[in-house]
Amino acid sequence: MYSKEKQRVSPSVIRRLPKYRRSLLELQSRGISRISSKELSRITGLTASQIRQDLNNFGGFGQQGYGYNVEELFKEVGGILGLDKEYNVVLVGFGNLGQAVANYLQNKIGFNLSAIFDINPNLIGTELRGITVQNFSGLNQFMRENKVDIGIIATDKSSAQSVSNMLCAGGVKGIWNFAPLDLIVPYSVVLENVHLSDSLYTLAYYINNHGK
Amino acid sequence: MYSKEKQRVSPSVIRRLPKYRRSLLELQSRGISRISSKELSRITGLTASQIRQDLNNFGGFGQQGYGYNVEELFKEVGGILGLDKEYNVVLVGFGNLGQAVANYLQNKIGFNLSAIFDINPNLIGTELRGITVQNFSGLNQFMRENKVDIGIIATDKSSAQSVSNMLCAGGVKGIWNFAPLDLIVPYSVVLENVHLSDSLYTLAYYINNHGK
Repeated sequence: MYSKEKQRVSPSVIRRLPKYRRSLLELQSRGISRISSKELSRITGLTASQIRQDLNNFGGFGQQGYGYNVEELFKEVGGILGLDKEYNVVLVGFGNLGQAVANYLQNKIGFNLSAIFDINPNLIGTELRGITVQNFSGLNQFMRENKVDIGIIATDKSSAQSVSNMLCAGGVKGIWNFAPLDLIVPYSVVLENVHLSDSLYTLAYYINNHGK
Repeated sequence: MYSKEKQRVSPSVIRRLPKYRRSLLELQSRGISRISSKELSRITGLTASQIRQDLNNFGGFGQQGYGYNVEELFKEVGGILGLDKEYNVVLVGFGNLGQAVANYLQNKIGFNLSAIFDINPNLIGTELRGITVQNFSGLNQFMRENKVDIGIIATDKSSAQSVSNMLCAGGVKGIWNFAPLDLIVPYSVVLENVHLSDSLYTLAYYINNHGK
């Protein structure tokens, strides 16, 4: 149903898809096989009309009077997000945050962590699930010899841009950046940031402006 | 200039404020004292008109033909976000992610980490910057005896909702949630999520749909 020749979909719709997927996974684990947009609305906190509109961007998956097939919609949403594909992933920076991200990736099917780099001599040579942490000086060579889809940056702020440049020159399709700065990447590379401060400061704002 | 009786500001405007603040901090570090919305546009990647509109929500800070005073605007944006206040913060979950968040908070002025809880006997009793990791069983009592503004949840998925319930019952104003689920919190409590999967899956989508 999902057409490759679709219109460009709004980023806010795309950002809601993982939430739908999460809710659908939860429903599956509770043995629920179909759901109305109204019930899905109650679970996700989005309006039923919003949900229908969002899913209509991809052809729409529900049937009038029946609702959505939970398993099918889960698969469709995963397919739209590209979660039926494989990604070769490299992580640069293996401090606490890098280790947390590496552990997180352990259960992410399709996102295959193949190498970890750091500059800290205490970390180089340590192992995580059979992956030995390599000296950062080997990154360029690794990138020349391997096809890497995603580069994760969990370094400090001062080295993040140069790491990003190396990953981009090495041919990554996307950068997942945890360093607290706005990286500059070539147009051909997708940049996705996890800026903890943006989230914390938004929380602070709403604590002070709750219900206003 | 910032009126407490303002209209409700759109969440997407609020989420852009930390980005403005980051750019302004960067400008300050480069010794730049004033900037036009056009130059700010080049740095942030937002349009000049968007920037003016966003800031007008709070009264507007620029002067025609002069632009923005970088230091003043930085302070104003910080004030809007509530970064001129103090927050007492408690962290539950001291695995890799919890440790990464605790380290991150070290440099965040105003966000004072006062206690850390975990259930892992190997972590209980360890220390971070003078804070001893406490047994999770002591959380309820701690909440009764201390005024806590923000509770951070860095536990696994299965315990996150019950931890959240305890923090909310203990009077937190906000929850910063890193666990991969959609928590249910009372209306009086602000919930801010860092869902790594939402970010990773959005990256996967754009890798597959770049430029479309």
